[in-house]
Amino acid sequence: MQYPGGPVQVQDIGEQKLLQILQRFCPPEIIGDDAAVLLTEPGKSLVVTTDVLVDNVHFSEVTTSPHDVGWRAAAANLSDIAAMGAWPLGITVGLALTGNVPVSWVEQLYEGMTECLQKYNTPIVGGDVVRSPVITVAISAFGQAYPGRIIRRNQAKVGDAIVVTGVHGASAAGLELLLHPEIGENLPHSDRTALIHAHQRPQPRLDVLPILWEIFDSHSPLPISGMDSSDGLADAVVQICRASGVGAVLESPQISLPTAFDHWLPKQQALEYALYGGEDFELVLCLPKEPAHVIVQNLGKGAAVIGTIIEGSTVLLHDQNGKIPDQVVTLNRGFQHFS
Amino acid sequence: MQYPGGPVQVQDIGEQKLLQILQRFCPPEIIGDDAAVLLTEPGKSLVVTTDVLVDNVHFSEVTTSPHDVGWRAAAANLSDIAAMGAWPLGITVGLALTGNVPVSWVEQLYEGMTECLQKYNTPIVGGDVVRSPVITVAISAFGQAYPGRIIRRNQAKVGDAIVVTGVHGASAAGLELLLHPEIGENLPHSDRTALIHAHQRPQPRLDVLPILWEIFDSHSPLPISGMDSSDGLADAVVQICRASGVGAVLESPQISLPTAFDHWLPKQQALEYALYGGEDFELVLCLPKEPAHVIVQNLGKGAAVIGTIIEGSTVLLHDQNGKIPDQVVTLNRGFQHFS
Repeated sequence: MQYPGGPVQVQDIGEQKLLQILQRFCPPEIIGDDAAVLLTEPGKSLVVTTDVLVDNVHFSEVTTSPHDVGWRAAAANLSDIAAMGAWPLGITVGLALTGNVPVSWVEQLYEGMTECLQKYNTPIVGGDVVRSPVITVAISAFGQAYPGRIIRRNQAKVGDAIVVTGVHGASAAGLELLLHPEIGENLPHSDRTALIHAHQRPQPRLDVLPILWEIFDSHSPLPISGMDSSDGLADAVVQICRASGVGAVLESPQISLPTAFDHWLPKQQALEYALYGGEDFELVLCLPKEPAHVIVQNLGKGAAVIGTIIEGSTVLLHDQNGKIPDQVVTLNRGFQHFS
Repeated sequence: MQYPGGPVQVQDIGEQKLLQILQRFCPPEIIGDDAAVLLTEPGKSLVVTTDVLVDNVHFSEVTTSPHDVGWRAAAANLSDIAAMGAWPLGITVGLALTGNVPVSWVEQLYEGMTECLQKYNTPIVGGDVVRSPVITVAISAFGQAYPGRIIRRNQAKVGDAIVVTGVHGASAAGLELLLHPEIGENLPHSDRTALIHAHQRPQPRLDVLPILWEIFDSHSPLPISGMDSSDGLADAVVQICRASGVGAVLESPQISLPTAFDHWLPKQQALEYALYGGEDFELVLCLPKEPAHVIVQNLGKGAAVIGTIIEGSTVLLHDQNGKIPDQVVTLNRGFQHFS
């Protein structure tokens, strides 16, 4: 990343001054020790996750402001916590910076993180700042959950309904619009803005958890399996099926798509975005049919039952209307390779 | 870092295969969900810390094998946990790799980490592997402690003895010997090996904690302030004094040095290594004189009372023997700047 010579850079102020600036974004009581101390509630388990984001691999100045990098990094980690059925306690931020990064870039990164986190009362509780040839942001998030309410991938049962908590494909379409504005020529301005916003400011679905807790008795284990759709809806369904030793049928007309897709994309391409696009950060949940429909009603807009868990190991995409031929859903398109 | 074309590289096997290889180093029950689940004990607080290491900034193939990079990264994080008076629960590892890193390099990194961790029954509970132009290792460590036993920096009291749990300067001298072997020409082979080993395989001082817990009644708060000496002994004393609003006198003849220094280094240079070298990962503790001496006796070799907390804000290095003039200890030499 190149910057004009103008703004104050981190190499101008040194590590200690930079840390002082960043500490403004942290609760004062946690600053200054070798590690941060967090209170946990008795009887709950600790849930931890970590993500690494690299400049020009996971974000780029073309599509993502520092504020958005911060928001997205925080959202991705909170989404992992939500996908476990846990509530966040805090995050740590490990920051590797080139010397010529403007101090304002780092401040905006932290502003983006804290703006996303504050909705969930989640503090930045610590971190590390080091020098590097490449900007790298490593976030770890901590949450807690009652052991019986933890949501795992490997508990999907034959007959379970497959629920999505919202639309899929918006984030990938938003990224495409940022990279290739010309493909959105026929798209109304508000639709374009909505898709780009979905990419830049995804919402972790922590709001889903209280709905689950209300529906299910807290004294018996939650009969829910699931994960988030950060690597795409197809990836989530395939991963759940693999871990649970089951298959699935997805009804393609039931997969909720952004309204902006309606008159813009051919059905097949809309489905590609939804299945393989990734970074929508919705939850994909497998649970008995009756509570599944209650949850969908409670969640409203975009939430849907999109299929059923079956025996076997195949994930089949089916169209009741017969418009699109049946196809087997695989992971091949959802993966990042080292190349 | 450059590698010959021979060995299998991470870009040859892809992310999923690499993750499978790395999962061999993790407990099987924690694998496969969006986040890891750890059990915490009731009544204890959660302690979290994070470190980022960058190739050619924090380690280099000249001085550090991948096994040592892993060991040192794990040790540094466990040391932060120990410095808080906490016992480790687990670590997460965020790994950014260039495509041409040999798979064996990554395996050796994990072997080094797990070898250091297993002494303390601490598992690798999760992580992330991503592509990057620069090898970067981001570790977060989690531990727990009873709230009354947490060791903070800001509790040092006038009259407290200042205790070090072992010798200082060995790690920095070991690094110098790796970078400039010629300076060790007059050093016996066993001394040279010991210093290099101190640099490559530092020991987090978790063994100190049970000794503290035995000496102090568990029903009243631990009357101890402290931190680890990862950034140097001088840095640790200055940071504790700043946080506590006090000063200190260090008695230079009391600062324990490696026996290898005895006939090798002039006293002044030996002290420079000890005060400003860093990465010895000892604990620097401030506590009342009587229990301080009990702890030193219990710890044995290298442990010592090296000074006293006084009023004011100055950290003075004093030599009772008058061989070295009094000097004020500052942080200037202990800092990394972005440059």
